[in-house]
Amino acid sequence: MSEAAETLDGWYSLHDFRSLDWAGWKALPAEERDATVKEFRQFLQQLDAIQSKHEGAYALYTITGQKADFVLWTMRPALEDLEEIETAFNKLRIADFTIPAYSYIGVNELSNYVRGGKADESAYENPRVRERLYPTLPKSKYFCFYPMDKRREGNDNWYMLPMEERKELMKSHGLIGRKYAGKVKQYILGSTGLDDYEWGVALLSDDALQFKKIVYEMRFDEASARYGEFGPFYVGSLLDEERLTSYLHIG
Amino acid sequence: MSEAAETLDGWYSLHDFRSLDWAGWKALPAEERDATVKEFRQFLQQLDAIQSKHEGAYALYTITGQKADFVLWTMRPALEDLEEIETAFNKLRIADFTIPAYSYIGVNELSNYVRGGKADESAYENPRVRERLYPTLPKSKYFCFYPMDKRREGNDNWYMLPMEERKELMKSHGLIGRKYAGKVKQYILGSTGLDDYEWGVALLSDDALQFKKIVYEMRFDEASARYGEFGPFYVGSLLDEERLTSYLHIG
Amino acid sequence: MSEAAETLDGWYSLHDFRSLDWAGWKALPAEERDATVKEFRQFLQQLDAIQSKHEGAYALYTITGQKADFVLWTMRPALEDLEEIETAFNKLRIADFTIPAYSYIGVNELSNYVRGGKADESAYENPRVRERLYPTLPKSKYFCFYPMDKRREGNDNWYMLPMEERKELMKSHGLIGRKYAGKVKQYILGSTGLDDYEWGVALLSDDALQFKKIVYEMRFDEASARYGEFGPFYVGSLLDEERLTSYLHIG
Amino acid sequence: MSEAAETLDGWYSLHDFRSLDWAGWKALPAEERDATVKEFRQFLQQLDAIQSKHEGAYALYTITGQKADFVLWTMRPALEDLEEIETAFNKLRIADFTIPAYSYIGVNELSNYVRGGKADESAYENPRVRERLYPTLPKSKYFCFYPMDKRREGNDNWYMLPMEERKELMKSHGLIGRKYAGKVKQYILGSTGLDDYEWGVALLSDDALQFKKIVYEMRFDEASARYGEFGPFYVGSLLDEERLTSYLHIG
Amino acid sequence: MSEAAETLDGWYSLHDFRSLDWAGWKALPAEERDATVKEFRQFLQQLDAIQSKHEGAYALYTITGQKADFVLWTMRPALEDLEEIETAFNKLRIADFTIPAYSYIGVNELSNYVRGGKADESAYENPRVRERLYPTLPKSKYFCFYPMDKRREGNDNWYMLPMEERKELMKSHGLIGRKYAGKVKQYILGSTGLDDYEWGVALLSDDALQFKKIVYEMRFDEASARYGEFGPFYVGSLLDEERLTSYLHIG
Repeated sequence: MSEAAETLDGWYSLHDFRSLDWAGWKALPAEERDATVKEFRQFLQQLDAIQSKHEGAYALYTITGQKADFVLWTMRPALEDLEEIETAFNKLRIADFTIPAYSYIGVNELSNYVRGGKADESAYENPRVRERLYPTLPKSKYFCFYPMDKRREGNDNWYMLPMEERKELMKSHGLIGRKYAGKVKQYILGSTGLDDYEWGVALLSDDALQFKKIVYEMRFDEASARYGEFGPFYVGSLLDEERLTSYLHIG
Repeated sequence: MSEAAETLDGWYSLHDFRSLDWAGWKALPAEERDATVKEFRQFLQQLDAIQSKHEGAYALYTITGQKADFVLWTMRPALEDLEEIETAFNKLRIADFTIPAYSYIGVNELSNYVRGGKADESAYENPRVRERLYPTLPKSKYFCFYPMDKRREGNDNWYMLPMEERKELMKSHGLIGRKYAGKVKQYILGSTGLDDYEWGVALLSDDALQFKKIVYEMRFDEASARYGEFGPFYVGSLLDEERLTSYLHIG
Repeated sequence: MSEAAETLDGWYSLHDFRSLDWAGWKALPAEERDATVKEFRQFLQQLDAIQSKHEGAYALYTITGQKADFVLWTMRPALEDLEEIETAFNKLRIADFTIPAYSYIGVNELSNYVRGGKADESAYENPRVRERLYPTLPKSKYFCFYPMDKRREGNDNWYMLPMEERKELMKSHGLIGRKYAGKVKQYILGSTGLDDYEWGVALLSDDALQFKKIVYEMRFDEASARYGEFGPFYVGSLLDEERLTSYLHIG
Repeated sequence: MSEAAETLDGWYSLHDFRSLDWAGWKALPAEERDATVKEFRQFLQQLDAIQSKHEGAYALYTITGQKADFVLWTMRPALEDLEEIETAFNKLRIADFTIPAYSYIGVNELSNYVRGGKADESAYENPRVRERLYPTLPKSKYFCFYPMDKRREGNDNWYMLPMEERKELMKSHGLIGRKYAGKVKQYILGSTGLDDYEWGVALLSDDALQFKKIVYEMRFDEASARYGEFGPFYVGSLLDEERLTSYLHIG
Repeated sequence: MSEAAETLDGWYSLHDFRSLDWAGWKALPAEERDATVKEFRQFLQQLDAIQSKHEGAYALYTITGQKADFVLWTMRPALEDLEEIETAFNKLRIADFTIPAYSYIGVNELSNYVRGGKADESAYENPRVRERLYPTLPKSKYFCFYPMDKRREGNDNWYMLPMEERKELMKSHGLIGRKYAGKVKQYILGSTGLDDYEWGVALLSDDALQFKKIVYEMRFDEASARYGEFGPFYVGSLLDEERLTSYLHIG
């Protein structure tokens, strides 16, 4: 019978990547553009207020290259809370100038491999655990997101390995992660049964080069080298209030 | 020669995923929007009436993220009945503000592995079997759908296994499912020869986290770990009459 | 050197799958819609007349789900005859309200595995062979189409098997097909060198459930289990004159 | 160290597949359509004139099915010459009624396996070699194009085989090709480093069935069976001056 | 534990591939087209000025075939600098007549396999290293770009090889590269953690045939033959000031 490592599960998470219809945006009269930005800003302030009350999390980053222009990342206690944010965004005027580019759903999770796979209900009372499951997202300069699976192919089948071996592999994997403590903040979003990959990984850092360094170094670790399957990567930089103004300004 | 496990086959099933053209919807004058919602609501009432008469099944859920905005799930005795629903929907005004996102066709089926693969015609008279083949869909809070195949790759070829081995694997698989009885309702839609995967799986639950738990736990079971190939996952929440009003309301 | 099984080759075949632009169709004034349907009907009558003269074949089916709204299937003696039908269709008014969804080209073929792989020119004189190579398509209630390849992967390489072994496998495969005689009519369209898969398979039946049963049962047969690679599946139901009227009618 | 078989390289080749926007084309006033066709025809005459002077090659074929409506195939001494043709086409009025469907770039090449892999500069003086590297394309009735790779997977890795073995395999492969001499003309376009596959193959014949026969027969040959990976196939028929008129004519 | 070869990291790099909306461009009044080209040219002059000051790099090439019409390649010290160029481009009038086609992000990197995998901070002071990490792009006639991964499949798993073996393979690989010194300039863009592949490779040459020769020869080298996975290839030719005028000119 199965022998899954249980997880501690926090807020639901939604990454909503959008491209901008720049031609349409430029064609809009300046005062309508201003009103549209103002309304968008009020919406973002509401998300910010909820994060301040620790009732959810929120971040806004531009995305480099053509995959998207920006990502709105939100976390909430319930799945339908995320849909409400989505719908509220879609009803904003700014949404008419965006094109859906990609989205990802998951649950902010803490793996229990370290404790031998047994989830302990009392863990949810632990303040350090709570901080990780229900985080306030820092205003780091850079953002990175990618979804991933554990491989199930011939002799490289993660899900056929005994728990002890998976635990060992995840421990070694974790040691690399620890080398980057203070440089890269990592959020693991469990998405088996919720989205197309088994996990989403979001990284925040004040040095974009650290994304390359950590992911490259981990790739030589057996847990990734033999068992990691990676989806698309998205990187970008913080879109704070000030930068938002210049970003959407048409001269 | 072949040694397929026969199935008990109930209603045909269609999942019709749609995205909304929010910009177009917002641009519509308020009274036209009202008339459009009213007409859509009447259509849904007809589907509901048919479900009440046990002549078919029906459910409407929003979908989280960008894959779709909602799914209309219907079951009927004949394939062309599903097409009639599709065509009727397409002729509604609301359809002009939707964009096809994904669809899936199958037959609500009951595997016969438990009986050694022999389908017994009298089984169709069994009330518990009838309840599963011709169900009334509960108004659960959350919805999950994914299509899947049994793998045929090198040494991991489900269709080359002897019946006894498949039976054993499915039994173990079923035991995990049973642990979730009362938490997750599961519908297996056989679609070999009808759609791109061999099965569609629809789950209903009042706790979205159970989708993650059951699918994750099953992935360590050999039937999934070695033999499961999974397509895209769609999750969302119940779009009942009340929520539909606010969902489509433009302030 | 190579040891291909020769085939008997009949008419060229084109499956032309189209989606309808329902919003555009509904926006058309009623009398223009009527004229458009009338013109389309005349076109279909010409195809029907050619089938009646045994100079080609023709069928029209709706397609269930979002993959397409209908398929126009035609067979003709030459490749450019099929292009002429395509072009004639594209020049019809109804075509302006259709969106290309998928198409498949092949040659209606009769495998020669049964005779040891040697094609005998005199076979083309055999009336039963002629009936299969140059068929009149029955007005069956249901339609199914899928393209397929024979696998060439590691130890599962169909094209590296000796002729005798392929012959044996195809014989067993054919026995399953024979069980469905009278229930399912099967057309094999050889498309190596003509389209993206090596074959297209079209099934016609008065019971849609038979598509699921035959394809499922065959999947356990070694020829499919180890050597079959399947593309997308399309199913639907007969769009005869009467149903066409109601299908395209806007109330 | 590597042991590549050198090639003799002729003209650069571009296959430019386009779909027609039939609705837009039909909506154009008849005299504008006439002017557009006239301008297109003059462009084609220029391409023809260049072919007549042996300064390049050119062919125009319709494509059967929905993948494209026609392909414009050109060959020229330099890569930027092909871009000039593309740009000139894009500036024509007819281009406004076409939708890009697919394109392929390569260099018309002659494999040197037969000479043991050593390219001999003097070979470029050989008239028969010149005829193959800088061809005049015949007005054959039918066209076929597909891109392909040599496989590099597990034990089936073409690029890890010793030269002698590759030479042997290509020799056997070539013998099949020779059986079709006089029936099918074959052009090999080397595209490693230039386009997504390693080769493009273009076939011309007066009998479309020969495309099916030659590709099917070759598939049983080890060079294809174990080492060939095939992309999409495009087939169609000659679009000469006369046929072009009726093709683009709206009644 | 992991044993990654450290790299020397230079400027961030963005390849921005765009297609032109020729129909829209032609429909624009001539004086508006002139103003649009003038504004675009000023933008390019700014990029050129920055390259002249060695504060970044820049190149503009047309792309052959339908994958894109041109690529704007820029390098800068920080990720957000690249986004600023993107945004500035999107705010230009010419951008309204372009369609995003593909983009690629990476960091101009120098592998450290040659030194046994240890990155030496002092290396950044070496003028020849600096020249490679912070280059001025030559005005070569031809451009080639492709992304690639190192394979992790069964027995062909690059990331499971010991450092010594990888070093040996990369050395042999480098020797082929050296044969093309003076003919092909090669830029390696490390993109693990930043974009979908692990590297982007950009080649510049005055002879487009060298792209085919070098990539083909390398494919027989074990580092590529067993361990290389290649994405799409883009080739094209220099779009300098003079050619830009004729390219965008509508007669």
